[in-house]
Amino acid sequence: MTDQEPRDLDLWVQETFRDIYATRFRVKRVLYSGQSPYQRVDVVETAGHGRMLLNDGLVMVSERDEHVYHEMIAHVPLFVHGRPRRVLVIGGGDGGTVREVLRHPVVEHVRLVEIDQLVVDACREFLPATAACLADPRVKVTIADGVRFVAETEERYDVVLVDSTDPIGPAAPLFGREFYGNVRDVLTDQGIVVSQAENPFYEQAAQRSLLATLQDLFPVLGVYNYHNLTYPGGLWSFSFASKGPRPLADFSPHLVGAAELDLKYYNAAVHGAAFALPEFQRREVAEYLTML
Amino acid sequence: MTDQEPRDLDLWVQETFRDIYATRFRVKRVLYSGQSPYQRVDVVETAGHGRMLLNDGLVMVSERDEHVYHEMIAHVPLFVHGRPRRVLVIGGGDGGTVREVLRHPVVEHVRLVEIDQLVVDACREFLPATAACLADPRVKVTIADGVRFVAETEERYDVVLVDSTDPIGPAAPLFGREFYGNVRDVLTDQGIVVSQAENPFYEQAAQRSLLATLQDLFPVLGVYNYHNLTYPGGLWSFSFASKGPRPLADFSPHLVGAAELDLKYYNAAVHGAAFALPEFQRREVAEYLTML
Repeated sequence: MTDQEPRDLDLWVQETFRDIYATRFRVKRVLYSGQSPYQRVDVVETAGHGRMLLNDGLVMVSERDEHVYHEMIAHVPLFVHGRPRRVLVIGGGDGGTVREVLRHPVVEHVRLVEIDQLVVDACREFLPATAACLADPRVKVTIADGVRFVAETEERYDVVLVDSTDPIGPAAPLFGREFYGNVRDVLTDQGIVVSQAENPFYEQAAQRSLLATLQDLFPVLGVYNYHNLTYPGGLWSFSFASKGPRPLADFSPHLVGAAELDLKYYNAAVHGAAFALPEFQRREVAEYLTML
Repeated sequence: MTDQEPRDLDLWVQETFRDIYATRFRVKRVLYSGQSPYQRVDVVETAGHGRMLLNDGLVMVSERDEHVYHEMIAHVPLFVHGRPRRVLVIGGGDGGTVREVLRHPVVEHVRLVEIDQLVVDACREFLPATAACLADPRVKVTIADGVRFVAETEERYDVVLVDSTDPIGPAAPLFGREFYGNVRDVLTDQGIVVSQAENPFYEQAAQRSLLATLQDLFPVLGVYNYHNLTYPGGLWSFSFASKGPRPLADFSPHLVGAAELDLKYYNAAVHGAAFALPEFQRREVAEYLTML
């Protein structure tokens, strides 16, 4: 014992990427830890990034920057489509993607299909800024395997958002050919599917594999990028595939201003710029891109 | 002693940002450590990012991604200017910026003014991929204080690139009003100055302060972004200020293709896209931007 002030625990959570790189966030306290049949789920209060959800130790969302990911997965396809009435979100049990979809008054129905009840429950209790929207009357939450859901449902959707973790563990089938064949069947005839497409710097093979799958199924295919503050490397992508709408040629910038959605990252200029790929990535994926 | 295989040391280098966030890179071995009058200088061999230079423990360049920073600081102003014969680089003792400038055959003379001889020496020995170009006959390396250099020189330059570390320590004056007043005087009448402008997510005040300084001195002022794999947060900016050339209106995309520079990140689409700022950043800096 000394007479010094009591000191905080020097507590950090670390995500290690391929044993070559790691990101660490200072943690004030661990708010929740649980184990589901699918994964470990933790919510921590960080010192500089608000509350943070981690699945199997990988950062999923932080309150400080989750709007970037969620705005970019939702508003790019919704503004391109123009009249999205029904939206299906697969994964995304934190609710952030659904929150952004609901900003569009034209949307009448959003179904969230999340495999893991524990993610939804943990986020409802500890991440209300993302999960509160799940109580909206336009939203239906279904705890189910998204792969099975799209194989069996008779419902049809204008936009499908695949808000998945990495292609390992429970999310692996969400990167496969069978799944996207069923997504195509679920989509209406002007339907769009946007998917979390990994990091083009470190995950070029995974990105090419996803695009090759989509190329066989959809006449329109693009890739767009955004900055993820809390994911390894900071440069991350979404794929954009559709039965008709083109992400640039059918995008009307004036709709964004007119909508007055009060966003923090997405705007009409960012929409177009996101499809301008760095040269190294453009070379990797150019063969897959059609009808932008 | 046991009969197990010898195991590598679990060696990582960590950069801690504001005590809330940290990035770590696995290190195979430390190649060089030195102390100059200005800073500590280290070069390490990482497991996944090639060789890496750290000044005072902050990551400056890694062989894996340094081309992104160096292409973006150099090619944006050089392609806008169109006829840059003389280029001044302040800081950037690693040589990566000079290497990119030299790709433009029209450039006749590059002066590098680096305050710290030790950075140049360490990079010449341990980072030849960035520093080898410093032996090019078009290059003159001057070990001097860049602030003093621009105050005293009679030379004139078409483009000035301020390739600085953060506005702490030896680089702090490189963010000041007096320095940029002298940069203006050093520039020819169609001159452009591009500066490392920090991270818009975490360093909004520093970015606004730099832009306010530049706004008073230059009729044309913009900000553009790029992805830095190994800097905290991944989203980083450069400022673009000039006496005339506008970064978008005076940019000819066809020049980039015609130049055939064989780059890895920069291309004509990236040039335009880099000026499309995320909404949160646009709101912060819009008042400073003129004549894009």
